[in-house]
Amino acid sequence: MAKPILVLNGPNLNLLGVREPATYGSNTLADIERLCADTARGLGLEIDFRQSNHEGDLVTWIQEARGAVSGLVINPAAYSHTSVAIPDALKMLDVEIVEVHLSNIHQREAFRHHSYVSAVAGGVICGLGAQGYRLAILALAEKIKE
Amino acid sequence: MAKPILVLNGPNLNLLGVREPATYGSNTLADIERLCADTARGLGLEIDFRQSNHEGDLVTWIQEARGAVSGLVINPAAYSHTSVAIPDALKMLDVEIVEVHLSNIHQREAFRHHSYVSAVAGGVICGLGAQGYRLAILALAEKIKE
Amino acid sequence: MAKPILVLNGPNLNLLGVREPATYGSNTLADIERLCADTARGLGLEIDFRQSNHEGDLVTWIQEARGAVSGLVINPAAYSHTSVAIPDALKMLDVEIVEVHLSNIHQREAFRHHSYVSAVAGGVICGLGAQGYRLAILALAEKIKE
Amino acid sequence: MAKPILVLNGPNLNLLGVREPATYGSNTLADIERLCADTARGLGLEIDFRQSNHEGDLVTWIQEARGAVSGLVINPAAYSHTSVAIPDALKMLDVEIVEVHLSNIHQREAFRHHSYVSAVAGGVICGLGAQGYRLAILALAEKIKE
Amino acid sequence: MAKPILVLNGPNLNLLGVREPATYGSNTLADIERLCADTARGLGLEIDFRQSNHEGDLVTWIQEARGAVSGLVINPAAYSHTSVAIPDALKMLDVEIVEVHLSNIHQREAFRHHSYVSAVAGGVICGLGAQGYRLAILALAEKIKE
Amino acid sequence: MAKPILVLNGPNLNLLGVREPATYGSNTLADIERLCADTARGLGLEIDFRQSNHEGDLVTWIQEARGAVSGLVINPAAYSHTSVAIPDALKMLDVEIVEVHLSNIHQREAFRHHSYVSAVAGGVICGLGAQGYRLAILALAEKIKE
Amino acid sequence: MAKPILVLNGPNLNLLGVREPATYGSNTLADIERLCADTARGLGLEIDFRQSNHEGDLVTWIQEARGAVSGLVINPAAYSHTSVAIPDALKMLDVEIVEVHLSNIHQREAFRHHSYVSAVAGGVICGLGAQGYRLAILALAEKIKE
Amino acid sequence: MAKPILVLNGPNLNLLGVREPATYGSNTLADIERLCADTARGLGLEIDFRQSNHEGDLVTWIQEARGAVSGLVINPAAYSHTSVAIPDALKMLDVEIVEVHLSNIHQREAFRHHSYVSAVAGGVICGLGAQGYRLAILALAEKIKE
Amino acid sequence: MAKPILVLNGPNLNLLGVREPATYGSNTLADIERLCADTARGLGLEIDFRQSNHEGDLVTWIQEARGAVSGLVINPAAYSHTSVAIPDALKMLDVEIVEVHLSNIHQREAFRHHSYVSAVAGGVICGLGAQGYRLAILALAEKIKE
Amino acid sequence: MAKPILVLNGPNLNLLGVREPATYGSNTLADIERLCADTARGLGLEIDFRQSNHEGDLVTWIQEARGAVSGLVINPAAYSHTSVAIPDALKMLDVEIVEVHLSNIHQREAFRHHSYVSAVAGGVICGLGAQGYRLAILALAEKIKE
Amino acid sequence: MAKPILVLNGPNLNLLGVREPATYGSNTLADIERLCADTARGLGLEIDFRQSNHEGDLVTWIQEARGAVSGLVINPAAYSHTSVAIPDALKMLDVEIVEVHLSNIHQREAFRHHSYVSAVAGGVICGLGAQGYRLAILALAEKIKE
Amino acid sequence: MAKPILVLNGPNLNLLGVREPATYGSNTLADIERLCADTARGLGLEIDFRQSNHEGDLVTWIQEARGAVSGLVINPAAYSHTSVAIPDALKMLDVEIVEVHLSNIHQREAFRHHSYVSAVAGGVICGLGAQGYRLAILALAEKIKE
Repeated sequence: MAKPILVLNGPNLNLLGVREPATYGSNTLADIERLCADTARGLGLEIDFRQSNHEGDLVTWIQEARGAVSGLVINPAAYSHTSVAIPDALKMLDVEIVEVHLSNIHQREAFRHHSYVSAVAGGVICGLGAQGYRLAILALAEKIKE
Repeated sequence: MAKPILVLNGPNLNLLGVREPATYGSNTLADIERLCADTARGLGLEIDFRQSNHEGDLVTWIQEARGAVSGLVINPAAYSHTSVAIPDALKMLDVEIVEVHLSNIHQREAFRHHSYVSAVAGGVICGLGAQGYRLAILALAEKIKE
Repeated sequence: MAKPILVLNGPNLNLLGVREPATYGSNTLADIERLCADTARGLGLEIDFRQSNHEGDLVTWIQEARGAVSGLVINPAAYSHTSVAIPDALKMLDVEIVEVHLSNIHQREAFRHHSYVSAVAGGVICGLGAQGYRLAILALAEKIKE
Repeated sequence: MAKPILVLNGPNLNLLGVREPATYGSNTLADIERLCADTARGLGLEIDFRQSNHEGDLVTWIQEARGAVSGLVINPAAYSHTSVAIPDALKMLDVEIVEVHLSNIHQREAFRHHSYVSAVAGGVICGLGAQGYRLAILALAEKIKE
Repeated sequence: MAKPILVLNGPNLNLLGVREPATYGSNTLADIERLCADTARGLGLEIDFRQSNHEGDLVTWIQEARGAVSGLVINPAAYSHTSVAIPDALKMLDVEIVEVHLSNIHQREAFRHHSYVSAVAGGVICGLGAQGYRLAILALAEKIKE
Repeated sequence: MAKPILVLNGPNLNLLGVREPATYGSNTLADIERLCADTARGLGLEIDFRQSNHEGDLVTWIQEARGAVSGLVINPAAYSHTSVAIPDALKMLDVEIVEVHLSNIHQREAFRHHSYVSAVAGGVICGLGAQGYRLAILALAEKIKE
Repeated sequence: MAKPILVLNGPNLNLLGVREPATYGSNTLADIERLCADTARGLGLEIDFRQSNHEGDLVTWIQEARGAVSGLVINPAAYSHTSVAIPDALKMLDVEIVEVHLSNIHQREAFRHHSYVSAVAGGVICGLGAQGYRLAILALAEKIKE
Repeated sequence: MAKPILVLNGPNLNLLGVREPATYGSNTLADIERLCADTARGLGLEIDFRQSNHEGDLVTWIQEARGAVSGLVINPAAYSHTSVAIPDALKMLDVEIVEVHLSNIHQREAFRHHSYVSAVAGGVICGLGAQGYRLAILALAEKIKE
Repeated sequence: MAKPILVLNGPNLNLLGVREPATYGSNTLADIERLCADTARGLGLEIDFRQSNHEGDLVTWIQEARGAVSGLVINPAAYSHTSVAIPDALKMLDVEIVEVHLSNIHQREAFRHHSYVSAVAGGVICGLGAQGYRLAILALAEKIKE
Repeated sequence: MAKPILVLNGPNLNLLGVREPATYGSNTLADIERLCADTARGLGLEIDFRQSNHEGDLVTWIQEARGAVSGLVINPAAYSHTSVAIPDALKMLDVEIVEVHLSNIHQREAFRHHSYVSAVAGGVICGLGAQGYRLAILALAEKIKE
Repeated sequence: MAKPILVLNGPNLNLLGVREPATYGSNTLADIERLCADTARGLGLEIDFRQSNHEGDLVTWIQEARGAVSGLVINPAAYSHTSVAIPDALKMLDVEIVEVHLSNIHQREAFRHHSYVSAVAGGVICGLGAQGYRLAILALAEKIKE
Repeated sequence: MAKPILVLNGPNLNLLGVREPATYGSNTLADIERLCADTARGLGLEIDFRQSNHEGDLVTWIQEARGAVSGLVINPAAYSHTSVAIPDALKMLDVEIVEVHLSNIHQREAFRHHSYVSAVAGGVICGLGAQGYRLAILALAEKIKE
């Protein structure tokens, strides 16, 4: 059976739906997990969906994904702007990576305009809310088919 | 019947498939128009697909779209980085806007990392090639349904 | 008879009154043209009032104004911040130039604080709405009298 | 009877006509006061015209203007570029403020391109010499009428 | 009974009294905990006092504080300057937040002059040593009374 | 008898309670003087409370404080960001100095994030409103006791 | 017969000889066209000489030159400093490109020191007036011979 | 018996030999541990060799090293560029510290040119691959002998 | 009889000999006045020696010096770095100006490296303590003789 | 007989043809000297061709050229970017100066984009390899004829 | 017999042991030469040890080293920060290069944090005093063996 | 007999009186040497006066001055702005150093506003022409007397 798509979520995303709904919408992370799982299932794929507040956990999970997943969706949240360790880990992956942000980071504080992860991701989707995850999985599915 | 989705393409995109295939892929603009039309049709929507090398044409088309379209996909190409007139026109639109870039602009020259259009677009998709247009239309369709 | 005062308007000003009324007020460009014509007429002067979304049109009109106008009012709008070609054209004019902005550009995004045109205009008026055009014509009339 | 328009002048403007005539013209400050008074009188208004070399005096005069004037014209001269106390005082005023500079500050040393006062003034007029004061009073009169 | 005040301490503060006493004083973290507890008790309040070297732990503790504490004192130490995840977590809290630094960070290396946390804290106290914690609790007590 | 604590207030603070209440609260400067006096009295101390709009006055008062006061609280207001003369005067004082800002200056315009005074003050308190003054006096009292 | 050398001229160059002769010399654009034609003819080559004030025209002409010219001389004038679309078009050409500036742009305003076109041109010649065009054609002829 | 030399390795170094061999060589971390142990043994020393993906673990290990080690070799990897907590911990150590990077960080992305750790390490060795660790231990041995 | 040389001293110089003797030496301002007077007398000249903590006073004194002095020595102290009004006043003087700093400002905080006054003074002397004043008077005497 | 054209070559150019042929081509400096001599001879001119690795030698040779040469071609190589002494010497020359770079310096490291020499040379030619020298001599010959 | 290792020393290193011993230690350059020679001899290698205060000498020696040495150790001292000619010469060498600094340049003035040489050296060692030379030779020996 | 004062002159000063007389005056270097010698003789001192175009010569002369001179006057000319080797040499001197510039470097190009030498010189004199040398010797004589 096919390897799953890993969907990684960075710090504070566990509080989604609670935290700044004006910025991030009212979907909870469980809602997004369900949306991802449904989308993947419709494409004959599975997902492995995780969240951590620890930069080191995200690094480790990315390392463990080597050879075990068919694609990666990552919303690094705050670590987009401050972590070099995460993109360093991502560079070792041999599968397609799509970076997702719920909000349009280019319309927020200047320090959020730059993401270290964008330098290593294949594609970047931002500002489309929970839909961004769905689109990322569609994009990966397309790549996996190739 | 529903208003079409306007798909605008900036300078040099008319030579797609020819220009720097390593960066932009081998799809021609006609291929992308077909992909957009097919995607839209599958969602019960139509598209109006245009390209210009003139900043002023893009501004005028955006102005004319007021009240006439149900959503906008724009790949401003080079004008992303140098035009204030285009985002000024976009601010007057009352429909959802998705900005698309074929390549991951964050992995190219520093001056391409900043897009004036991102400050006014709802969502931004980059690095996913022609797929990016398809995903943008999917995202708009979702918004139109709401 | 005296040469007219040329009044040039940059991109998106054709949608005035529609676009961001909170920032630019509810006057349409036709209202402003009427205000300018009335002001000029009261001073025994005429105006030639134009708008374009094309940087190249504005450059050409400025070139054609050489020897044909008695003064120039210009609201370069978005091209204030991105055009070197327009001030290059203005430098060839031998008449007084007044730059006008409807809004106070110093209270908006940082990239709007700088206008290339200000480096070649005689005077600059901003933040006074449509009145700014009237004052610019008064100022030019004073210069023409000298 | 109507409250006067306060016209404030910053440091070194008392030497106008003497100091750098190539940059500032040959009008003295008394000439400008007369021009302002005449302009105001023609509009049924009065002026209160003052100058100081002390930042603190200008701050105090602005504070005292609260409730006592119908509009403010201010040429902060050198303090435009170095004073935060003056714009802090201006923010408390409930009348329209027009900032005036005799010369076009955008054509002088880089440190003169930025004025802290522009961030709180309604309008800004520069480069039109003594005429700038007259236009500022015209603009205020228009606002007072509304 | 009243909810406690959470007092969070960032990396290396567990070695207080040992590390750079010239900069941070000779109080240990246990001394500071006692000072905080005593201060709070005198005001009829309790504290919950914690320290971690892990950014992720601090994020999680802040998340768990939602609805469970009556105020927050945080000395983010090194994470002040490098963490976006911590202020992102703080933005979700509905209680008053006071940021404390033992030393006057404005007199140290340039990179310590900026704290991401200051953008979301209600108040900031620095340079007053262990006293800073006591004052922060006094300030929170005042807010809680309101 | 003990020397008083000098409490200095910079420009525009005389209008407190009037000016931007959303930012600075509704306390007047007289309210704050009373709060400071009460706080000091409770600690067996007296205060000398002053305000000026003139940078030079503040410099002179600081100079005169040498040998005459037991501590200094200073809210330099706008001069925090533009005065080198005030911190130069403060460096000559042999008593503890606490800088106070009513608002959290790190959440306002970028030019307010830097205070020249912070480089010479012992401690800095901001964002706690009138309470900030009370805490500053408590901190000084603690130092005086030592 | 051999393909011609395309000689492209940017905005305001149509007014050459009129505009700022101190900076650009008294040659008209027709003089330069004649110089280019003569130089080319002497080398057994032909030229196609054009000027436009529109960025989009220059982009289109460069696109059309693909496969149709044996070399390109371009004086992008003001668009050197503000256009990304022109160098994007140039990157698609498979012939040698020489960028020419009449004046020495390194001795003018700072914003003229940088040309986006220089990043894609093979060679750059500036400060040699109309001679620069002649030398550019000589250089291209040398390349064509190879 | 002598205290060991602590050899600390930052994030992603556990995947050495796998990750970007063109940049980091084909040695695994186990190879490097063996090289370090052999080098130390030849000098009559022992090593304690560790790796973590967690910034907080590295901070804690450094804290625990106080009084327990005779020297420290640290390759902070990605945390070189983003961690202030690690150098803050290092400042408390009373033994010599040598920072090691496998690659020459000055030849990589600009953000890798700066290491916060270099401001507190005694020596820095980069670009010499696994040899760098051996040289660091030789340098420490020399210091320990003194 | 000849017009005197004006010697102006900025803020805090009245406390010389008291303030930071390590930086400024133990001479009092009265000592320096005596040194200046003696030096001038030896050259058949007189001095007018003043100090103020108020920027406005210094501006006024410079204005009054027009036509009344034969040369100017100015130590603007803190106002060197923050005043534009002082150099604006100095530009109106028709006599030679020498700027003096007791300490070598290039060896102090970065913000002291730049003096607005240096842009308008004929000569600048720094780092030579009270001697600097003596040398400035010698230099002016030489100019006056010419 | 006519004075020669001086052709100066900066550091490392003596190794041309050896050093980075991908960047600089396979011509040796002797080849270039021959090309220059041939070109000059064809125009009835002579050349004086020199190279040094010492900045001071180049300065001295430029000084000695005063009155002795009819024009100067200079390829300052690395000293373009680091020497102020060379352009200071060039400013004293009364003949036309053309700066030549073999490679297109605008396509290399950022520090090579700026040449101090460009601020004093009449013309600049880069990116045309050895041909650049020939064109420079042609340009000088044209000037000498005038 | 094997080619020697060239050890190059930049300006002022001839005064080592005299100059700022707190920063550079008390070893003289002769001591370091002896240390290098001993280290090399122990590895069956020889050294060629030189020092110059002239940038041009260092460039020339590096050029002459082509084909004549088996490795290069260079302490460029002050020229690290100001010379482009030296790294340009180094790029032509086909042997391994190790850059050495006696002090930890990252703990000194900001302008010493950047070395042009680091962009072309294989490895960099700093802050380890005279030991740094010994380690550099060990590293080169290792490379030569390969 | 007393050790001489060394007077060092940097590149291009040998052409003084010739080079840019508007900026540097019409004195030749021989005139200045005479002025220095006369001034010194009047104070019972001697001078050793030198000039070089080579940075390395200046470094060497400064090194040789250790123990051999009683003071140093240095006009580093262009090397002020580009040499770190010269101030590194100056730091080893145990006598007073005065830096002299003929012109007021703060009124010239921005890159001349910064002198590396100012960070190590005791005093700096600029803008006073040849007089600056005389004043520097007077200042040194005063120091030598102490």
